This record gives sequence, C-alpha cells and structure tokens, in this order.
Amino acid sequence: MVRILEIKESVFEDNNRQAGLLRERLKKEKTFLLNLMSSPGSGKTTTLKETIPYLKEELKIGVMEADIDSAIDAETIAKTGITAIQLHTGGMCHLDADMTRQGLEALETKNLDLVILENVGNLVCPAEFDTGAVKNAMILSVPEGDDKPLKYPLMFSIADVLLINKIDVLKYFDFDLEAVKERVLNLNPHIKIMPISAKTGEGIEEWAQWLRSETKKWIEE
Amino acid sequence: MVRILEIKESVFEDNNRQAGLLRERLKKEKTFLLNLMSSPGSGKTTTLKETIPYLKEELKIGVMEADIDSAIDAETIAKTGITAIQLHTGGMCHLDADMTRQGLEALETKNLDLVILENVGNLVCPAEFDTGAVKNAMILSVPEGDDKPLKYPLMFSIADVLLINKIDVLKYFDFDLEAVKERVLNLNPHIKIMPISAKTGEGIEEWAQWLRSETKKWIEE
Repeated sequence: MVRILEIKESVFEDNNRQAGLLRERLKKEKTFLLNLMSSPGSGKTTTLKETIPYLKEELKIGVMEADIDSAIDAETIAKTGITAIQLHTGGMCHLDADMTRQGLEALETKNLDLVILENVGNLVCPAEFDTGAVKNAMILSVPEGDDKPLKYPLMFSIADVLLINKIDVLKYFDFDLEAVKERVLNLNPHIKIMPISAKTGEGIEEWAQWLRSETKKWIEE
Repeated sequence: MVRILEIKESVFEDNNRQAGLLRERLKKEKTFLLNLMSSPGSGKTTTLKETIPYLKEELKIGVMEADIDSAIDAETIAKTGITAIQLHTGGMCHLDADMTRQGLEALETKNLDLVILENVGNLVCPAEFDTGAVKNAMILSVPEGDDKPLKYPLMFSIADVLLINKIDVLKYFDFDLEAVKERVLNLNPHIKIMPISAKTGEGIEEWAQWLRSETKKWIEE
C-alpha cells in the first residue's frame, strides 16, 4: 500500500513567491523537481514507469502522483521500486507551490536527487500555477489530436519539453506530427519536442537522458 | 467566419440557483440544452459533426463551442449547416450557469429546439458546475484508458449518458470495456452507456435517437 496524503488548499496569495522559495530550497537540498502535465489518459504514469529503470541506479528518485481520487498511479509507480506517494487534491484541478511543498515534505526529499510531480490530468489549470518545479514537461498523445496547441496554448508555452506519446498508433489517427511541431514552436521556440511511445519504448531513452542531464546540472552546479 | 464571444466570469455566488432559473427559462422557450463534457481530444466535436445530420431536418439546432482559445471547433460545426458560436472563457476551465446564459443569448435560442454546449475539455472543473443544461453527456475515449472512472468519479456520477468513443481502435489499446462499464455503473447506476466511433459512425444513430427523444420530451411536454 502506498501512502495517500490529503493536501490542503494553499492559503498564500502570492504563488509565484512561494514557488521561488521552494526552488531555492530544492537547490540547497540538491533535489531536482520536474512537473509533468497532460490531459487525462495521455500516458503520464506509463511514461514514468518506462523512464525510471533508465535512471534509478544512478539517481535517487521519488514520484508524487496527484489525483482527485484513487491511488492506482502511485501503486503502479511503487512497483518500479522507487518511493511513490499519492496526493489527493481535495477536488482541485491543479497544484500550486504550497501544495507541492506539502507533498515534498511527506516524501522527504532531502535524500532524493530527482522528484517527479505527476500533476492532475488537465490541460488548463496546471499551466496557470508555478509549482516550484525546476522544469516543466508535458505530454500530448496522438489520439488527442493535432489541434491541441491551438486550443490550449498556455501549457505548450510554459513547457520546457513536450513528449508526443503513443506514436505507435500514428497510422490509425489523423494526426499531423509536423503540423503539431510547427504550432508548438510558434508558441514556444525554445521547447524540446520528443516523439515517444511509452508502450513500445521508442524515444524513452533519449527522454531519460535529457532528465538525467538536467538533474545533474541542477544538483552539481 | 463564426462569431466569437468572450464570456465574462460570473458574479453570482449561488450557481445552483442560476442554473435552476436558466432551466426554467429554457422550458418556457421550448429549448433543450445538452452539456457535453470530456477530456481534451476525446472527440466531442467530431461526435457532434456526425450526430447533427441525423437531427437537423427535424430539429432546429445550435452549438456553443467553449474553449480557452481558437475558433476551429465552431468553424467545423458551422460547416454542417447549423448555427455555431465560439465561446472564449477567459482562461476559465469550465462554464457556470451564467456564462452559459451569456452564450445562449448570443445564439438566440428562442428559435432553437436543441442547443448543445461543448464544454471546455477537462474532466475536473466542468463537473463541478451546473450549467443549467437539461441533461449532461460525457465522452470517454478508448485511448484515455479504462481507469478514468476511478480517478475522476464526479463527472461519471453526474452524467446522464456516457459515450465511449474511438471503439474502432479498441484492439490497439489495453482498454477493458466491461471493466469500465462496471466502474461507471458502480458510481452511477442510472447512466446510459453507449459505445461509439465518431470516425466509422458506429453507434451514432442510437445516440442521435436518444438525443432526439430527450429533446422532444422536453419541448413537447
């Protein structure tokens, strides 16, 4: 059984300030925090499950799974042998910096190199709140359609990396990969775009490498 | 070009009361309002595009497409020959009853039998606000996974109909249709569950029939 933490809605009005303080603390504690966002069902948990084996020998990893209900994602991640905790957001569709801090304290990050926050499945609210993470990643999966950057521009604008997941089913969907890349780069010229399939493993090693290198930069510099 | 309406955040504290008033008004004006909810990319617009031809000879139909940005969904719907309007929610991830009223007034519903509100793509917030609709429908698509009723129970609990879309790709995904039905019926024993494929047209006629019959019940009784 994984631990389930009911996090409380934050009382701080200035979330950006709280997020900045949290990043300072993470820097001191030498912990890299990744905020992973996407729609429900785009494959966040499956991607993490496939990514962890590439990193867990070298880095001490913890995962915080945020959901409205259930603990199934944290249970899935715990099976990879790393520390996982389930956060329940009390119905909230996002986490802010103070909610993230509550999760980190329960996870005891002082001993961890890399913590991944799997945010609530949602393309709107999570993009509006700085969680205090060092980097933001997002997943768009092929079945969701190539129009998503047009409809939900904010998340694509604030992400450092976009994983385009489920490319193993590209041929069964009308999804124009080149059009997506163009639309996303239009919004965010500095974003790194990586097509992956969490199911077949395609692209996961490259993504894990990016995560390893960003973590090392943060904890060693 | 379709009309784009920037709707304003509601000032009413008591959304349930506003929703009740809106339903009373719709009853008087003999207009049926359906609230259609789902994750981003589960196929709301495509499903509507395929449903409208079954109904448009018999019913006067209008569609309100709610999104954070772009007008592509309203443009897609307008091509079916019915009235469509794009609502921009000013970054909000849901519509409440007063925001819905603003859209309805712009659409001039007095002459319409059936209005469909395509809510913002999101499994969390839209379920928390009564829009004033007569019925709530939601779509879950096969690629999103069969665990969604466990993680987002509220929307499944308040929906009158669940369309399980993209069943044409069932064999490429680990999606247990029977498990989903059981999980959903556990939450909501009165929900009607219809597997469909907006791409191949499977199941759309039955769904259109349900919508026709509910509309007639509302406007004729």
